[in-house]
Amino acid sequence: MRTDNEGLARLKLSLLAEPGDPRLVRFLADAEPAEVLDAVVRGRAIGGVAPPQSWLERAERLDALVATTLVKAKAAGLRWLCRTDHDWPPQLADLDHLDPLNGSTGAPMGLWLRGRGNLARLVESSVAIVGARDATTYGAEVAADLGADVSDAGMTVVSGAAYGIDACAHRGALAMGKPTIAVLAGGADVDYPRAHTALLARIAADGLVVSEQAPGQIPMKARFLSRNRLIAGLTQGTVVVEAARRSGSLNTLNWADQLGRVTMGVPGPVTSHASVGVHEALRSGKAIVVTNGREVMEAVGVLGVVDATPDRAPESAYDQLPSQARRVLDALPWGVIRSAAEIGVEIGVPASDVDDHLVVLERIRLVNREMCGWSLQRRADLLRGA
Amino acid sequence: MRTDNEGLARLKLSLLAEPGDPRLVRFLADAEPAEVLDAVVRGRAIGGVAPPQSWLERAERLDALVATTLVKAKAAGLRWLCRTDHDWPPQLADLDHLDPLNGSTGAPMGLWLRGRGNLARLVESSVAIVGARDATTYGAEVAADLGADVSDAGMTVVSGAAYGIDACAHRGALAMGKPTIAVLAGGADVDYPRAHTALLARIAADGLVVSEQAPGQIPMKARFLSRNRLIAGLTQGTVVVEAARRSGSLNTLNWADQLGRVTMGVPGPVTSHASVGVHEALRSGKAIVVTNGREVMEAVGVLGVVDATPDRAPESAYDQLPSQARRVLDALPWGVIRSAAEIGVEIGVPASDVDDHLVVLERIRLVNREMCGWSLQRRADLLRGA
Repeated sequence: MRTDNEGLARLKLSLLAEPGDPRLVRFLADAEPAEVLDAVVRGRAIGGVAPPQSWLERAERLDALVATTLVKAKAAGLRWLCRTDHDWPPQLADLDHLDPLNGSTGAPMGLWLRGRGNLARLVESSVAIVGARDATTYGAEVAADLGADVSDAGMTVVSGAAYGIDACAHRGALAMGKPTIAVLAGGADVDYPRAHTALLARIAADGLVVSEQAPGQIPMKARFLSRNRLIAGLTQGTVVVEAARRSGSLNTLNWADQLGRVTMGVPGPVTSHASVGVHEALRSGKAIVVTNGREVMEAVGVLGVVDATPDRAPESAYDQLPSQARRVLDALPWGVIRSAAEIGVEIGVPASDVDDHLVVLERIRLVNREMCGWSLQRRADLLRGA
Repeated sequence: MRTDNEGLARLKLSLLAEPGDPRLVRFLADAEPAEVLDAVVRGRAIGGVAPPQSWLERAERLDALVATTLVKAKAAGLRWLCRTDHDWPPQLADLDHLDPLNGSTGAPMGLWLRGRGNLARLVESSVAIVGARDATTYGAEVAADLGADVSDAGMTVVSGAAYGIDACAHRGALAMGKPTIAVLAGGADVDYPRAHTALLARIAADGLVVSEQAPGQIPMKARFLSRNRLIAGLTQGTVVVEAARRSGSLNTLNWADQLGRVTMGVPGPVTSHASVGVHEALRSGKAIVVTNGREVMEAVGVLGVVDATPDRAPESAYDQLPSQARRVLDALPWGVIRSAAEIGVEIGVPASDVDDHLVVLERIRLVNREMCGWSLQRRADLLRGA
């Protein structure tokens, strides 16, 4: 556990004030964390303003609070990361310049991390994929595909581990064997929702489970809204996959918008209530239309990076294909249905051989069998282009 | 049949040159129709430019061409409408200022009309609803709903009578007992597609079947593209409901865009090939997102007109409801599922009575029966708001 002055001062401040309290941002604009802490502990004003009563009350039992927190953190294997650490994501500082939204703002005092991932490195190229808890089959599928596509191309998926879209986005990344980050509204040791205990454990195994709340803290409505600013603040852009009118996931989009990050929405059937909020965001210009992982990467401007630095996009399923199978795939443009015979004619291979390749390609989810031929999976088009 | 000089001259010119020929626009910028006609017939230059050879050849048998055309028109009950007629839509003149697209441009010389509708009046408040021939069930439903919603609110639906989205949009209007306009790529007497003979007859009965091609002319690829400029040119805006990549219906959107008319697209599942072209148009900013009839009307700016002049929005199914049924409907907000009991409590009516009303409302397609209650049909929300 860190014990340097600023790190410990920030940890203590995070226990005195509700994380995201705008007053903390104001005090820290005038003084160093250790000075603010000192003033609160001594009940003194900072820049002429008295600390809130609730902070003073908690300051009286601060030593006990710190002790309990450290015990819980140790038990759960959490570590405290703050601005002075080399793996602190610098982009979080943008949060200090935002007007409060739902009563919270500011970069977190620090973050409790579960898992061994390097936060700064993981979020360097990252995107938030969020959406409705009561997702439709369509939304669930799109979220999983997006999660898989962007993480396969080297981006980290950040989400909230909630039911529905969040979980699907995480699982899409995990299914590709890629690390993903869950930012929780309660403590990083508090599995929420309870049913996602195993999912969170898997996320922590390769990636990170993150929270600005002290270990043991329970999630509450205000903390979900406050947590959303971290999801937006850590990432280069936020994609909303499904959101009913006034859905909480639009709140993450608002944070991303305020931060000047890229805001994206995946359209859906206009007959689906689960897409109404997304369509409203698209109509109002609060988000741009994205329909697949490639477009998300284009929007956040990493596609060029991925192309330019192949070491960030490790050998994909596409690259590992036998060359004839790859030629079969290349003869199948995205959005077109072709028969094995047609493909065979184009690449000069007997239709029966083409058919054999297609059956294998179907098994590894690169092509779909259609009524009158074969079509490419979106994933395959992305892999091929990357 | 009209015999005034300009009308007849324009009719003759429409037989000499392929409608939409950009050269015709240029000649008519320098001279009156009768002068251009005279020059072509005499083989003389206009403004120093010689008429194309193909025009000169057709001019040699012009009398026969006119005679056949008039006989066919009479047999099919078509009438010739041109700029000098009082029911000529003035907005078509905008087409004279467009760069050629796929080799055609310009306001039509005139239009052959089948049906008794007043063209200018019908298109005064009108919207084009176009899209894929191979529409999905989703697209078909959305097109029919849009057609029904906007025509119920007093707008005329203009489309191309093709399979898929076009036909659904026309049928949506017809189902509400409203006139609709089909613009054909062949002669107005040539039923295309053949399977839509009955549909075209119904369209002509209350609305209009329209073409710039002479009676008997067959539709050809270039004529479809050229026809699209009339669909865009007649209307205040164009909505594309479904369009695969590079679909012809995006061509209509391009015309509308060139004309500065409102360009709209209905999003769909990103997993559907039939929506790829629409999403591309939305992403490129070539169209704005619309998800229902109300939004289409807002976009073309007629919603205020509809609200302000109730005589344009005749008594709707909603207005005709018994007052208690209307209260039941009013207690069901759009996008919410409520039980009969909940509605009963809110409006102070026994749940069994509420249930009776809901069953009737379901039959006239204003509400849907859901697993755990009732929801409003989009139509009902629109009717209620109009």
